[in-house]
Amino acid sequence: MISLDILKELSQKSNSKIIMLVMDGLGGLPRLLGGLTELETASCPNLDTLAGNSVTGMVDPIAKGIPPGSGPAHLALFGYDPIRNQIGRGVLAALGIGFNLQAADVAARINFATIDNKGNVTDRRAGRLATEKNQELCQILDKIHIPGVKTFVRTVKEHRAMVVFRGSGLSGDLMDSDPQKTGVSPLSVVPHTDSPEAKNTAKLANRFIEECKKVLSHEEKGNMVLLRGFAQYHPLPSMGDIYKLKAAAIATYPMYRGVARLVGMEILECGESIADEFEALARNFSSYDFFYLHIKKTDSYGEDGDFDQKVHIIEQVDSFIPQMMGLNPDVVIVTGDHSTPAVLTSHSWHPNPILLYSRWCRPDKVKVFSESECIHGGLGRFLAKEIMPLALANSLRLNKFGA
Amino acid sequence: MISLDILKELSQKSNSKIIMLVMDGLGGLPRLLGGLTELETASCPNLDTLAGNSVTGMVDPIAKGIPPGSGPAHLALFGYDPIRNQIGRGVLAALGIGFNLQAADVAARINFATIDNKGNVTDRRAGRLATEKNQELCQILDKIHIPGVKTFVRTVKEHRAMVVFRGSGLSGDLMDSDPQKTGVSPLSVVPHTDSPEAKNTAKLANRFIEECKKVLSHEEKGNMVLLRGFAQYHPLPSMGDIYKLKAAAIATYPMYRGVARLVGMEILECGESIADEFEALARNFSSYDFFYLHIKKTDSYGEDGDFDQKVHIIEQVDSFIPQMMGLNPDVVIVTGDHSTPAVLTSHSWHPNPILLYSRWCRPDKVKVFSESECIHGGLGRFLAKEIMPLALANSLRLNKFGA
Repeated sequence: MISLDILKELSQKSNSKIIMLVMDGLGGLPRLLGGLTELETASCPNLDTLAGNSVTGMVDPIAKGIPPGSGPAHLALFGYDPIRNQIGRGVLAALGIGFNLQAADVAARINFATIDNKGNVTDRRAGRLATEKNQELCQILDKIHIPGVKTFVRTVKEHRAMVVFRGSGLSGDLMDSDPQKTGVSPLSVVPHTDSPEAKNTAKLANRFIEECKKVLSHEEKGNMVLLRGFAQYHPLPSMGDIYKLKAAAIATYPMYRGVARLVGMEILECGESIADEFEALARNFSSYDFFYLHIKKTDSYGEDGDFDQKVHIIEQVDSFIPQMMGLNPDVVIVTGDHSTPAVLTSHSWHPNPILLYSRWCRPDKVKVFSESECIHGGLGRFLAKEIMPLALANSLRLNKFGA
Repeated sequence: MISLDILKELSQKSNSKIIMLVMDGLGGLPRLLGGLTELETASCPNLDTLAGNSVTGMVDPIAKGIPPGSGPAHLALFGYDPIRNQIGRGVLAALGIGFNLQAADVAARINFATIDNKGNVTDRRAGRLATEKNQELCQILDKIHIPGVKTFVRTVKEHRAMVVFRGSGLSGDLMDSDPQKTGVSPLSVVPHTDSPEAKNTAKLANRFIEECKKVLSHEEKGNMVLLRGFAQYHPLPSMGDIYKLKAAAIATYPMYRGVARLVGMEILECGESIADEFEALARNFSSYDFFYLHIKKTDSYGEDGDFDQKVHIIEQVDSFIPQMMGLNPDVVIVTGDHSTPAVLTSHSWHPNPILLYSRWCRPDKVKVFSESECIHGGLGRFLAKEIMPLALANSLRLNKFGA
């Protein structure tokens, strides 16, 4: 694959508009061998029409056989090698709530938990604390001072929060303090490697946890914190810098806003519904030239094992396609970040169908947007990280490679 | 492609069973342009039915256009990069007869040959020596002492044997002593590189050959040894270690048992026939969770140019498919290690058809297991080293990559 350095050299500005519509966990499986997937079951007249004018194919998010997490799957969609650019969960959580991470910050996810008087965890989620209570506790924890490091504590939602450690000589190579079960005491944070930075950060993290325990001791629920997903923030080159795109994200979940922010997108204000998201697209259409529009519920219902509701969400998205095409975008990509077959109730390794529409796409003979039809598409089976060069090319943004 | 390190992190134990059925040299060519290949000529109702419930595709063993040797082709099937992990023929010969190689041993293949009184080779195979005679000679050669190195000599079969050099400062970067023709004297072993290790080992090998010549001088046939395929043994991480599989091999030829042992498989006892091999599979089915079942004769008849007999072997294998499926394996892969078209009488670069069956495979529309049909399969055209991640994923053995 072509490197970001080369893409940066080849790409140029343009007024053309690119929409990347990502239905999270789009790909599926039939309920019974020989049946239809969720997408094949859904009635999608508008996506099928669009497929007829598009070039199609099948996309492997990371590599054949690898079930992807959401972070790497999205980085790949945005053109970043997901194996070379591994992003920890803590960093994603911080980016997701809009925390302004600085290079070398170490971030971790917090679960408010409840421990008994022996110090054993009785509830790993503190009864799914109310978000308001969480905010109250975070204000207290945010005041903690640990010599040698600056700490920031912020609410995410319900029992979930996050902490950022800022200072010199830090590392994200640390194990979780979350024991992943009740009836035992929280773990000490131990370094994953032998480096002095990891040892130092483990010490600071344990000190931080001790302080939290002290100031929370009078709480009935949420009298302890469990730390998970330590990760150091290494900024990525932005999409603006590499692709010369003014890129915007429309996403309702913090995690996806976080990944979008990681690659330098602006996050657009929008409501919670699919209609709200397409409305935000229309409202901002003149102000940006790349739009990432993320639909979460295809994945959520897939993870719930709810085949029918996943079908329903796909049909809902289909109903907004005419409105989206009415904006006259130059390039439209529709795909998933990974598959979430309802019968597996989890992310899976299966490739996703993709369609790429543009005036210059050289359409193939595929007339139906589905897993079984897109196999025969003109793009073949390829890796997600190769989508962005195709998007740029189809918006006539790429100069020749070599003379 | 995903590295073995990452696969090791993602893989987990499971009780599910994987069968990899390899018909050696499966892929073929039509006798006449426009005709049918061996596989297309064969009547394979059972493989066709299985293909109908499978996802299919075309596999390039090493890379497009590269005719593979058996060693690298098999390493790729087992998920090891065949270009980064090049294994010399000497090492394969030693592993094939069950010789317990140690790291850094240098192994070479021996041909017993006949030389005349001028020292010129008159028969490179010593009249295809009887194996019993070979064993008798190897006992003599095994007693040779060379200062600075320990040598082991073992019979392979007929005129073929092998020698292992064990000691410090050795290298496998040596040229053959086999002149590849008669009427000339055997070559001196010369180093392939300038390294002191290669020079040292060349000296030891020449010394060894001199000693052999001395003790064999009274023999009428087999009064000389020719050395070929020098290679140093660098152990690979085992399939058990990387994939957390308890892996077993069913193969009738030493070479394939050798490659299987190289990646840490256990070699199962079995008779010589195809029926014996499937019987060994059934007998051991509860004791392992990955089975490599190797059919040699598709390749042998291909190399003999015997199109009809190759067809016949494929049909024989087909007849055992119902028995194999009766074991209720979770994942079944059927493919070849490389193509051996009878019309070429040699290994070739053509990709092999593959089918992958599992409850979760997302079957495509291909209903016939053949070169021309599997082109349209859902797996597309891909590299053999990508098969193992797919096998693991389909047996639900892989955790998510990233959060």
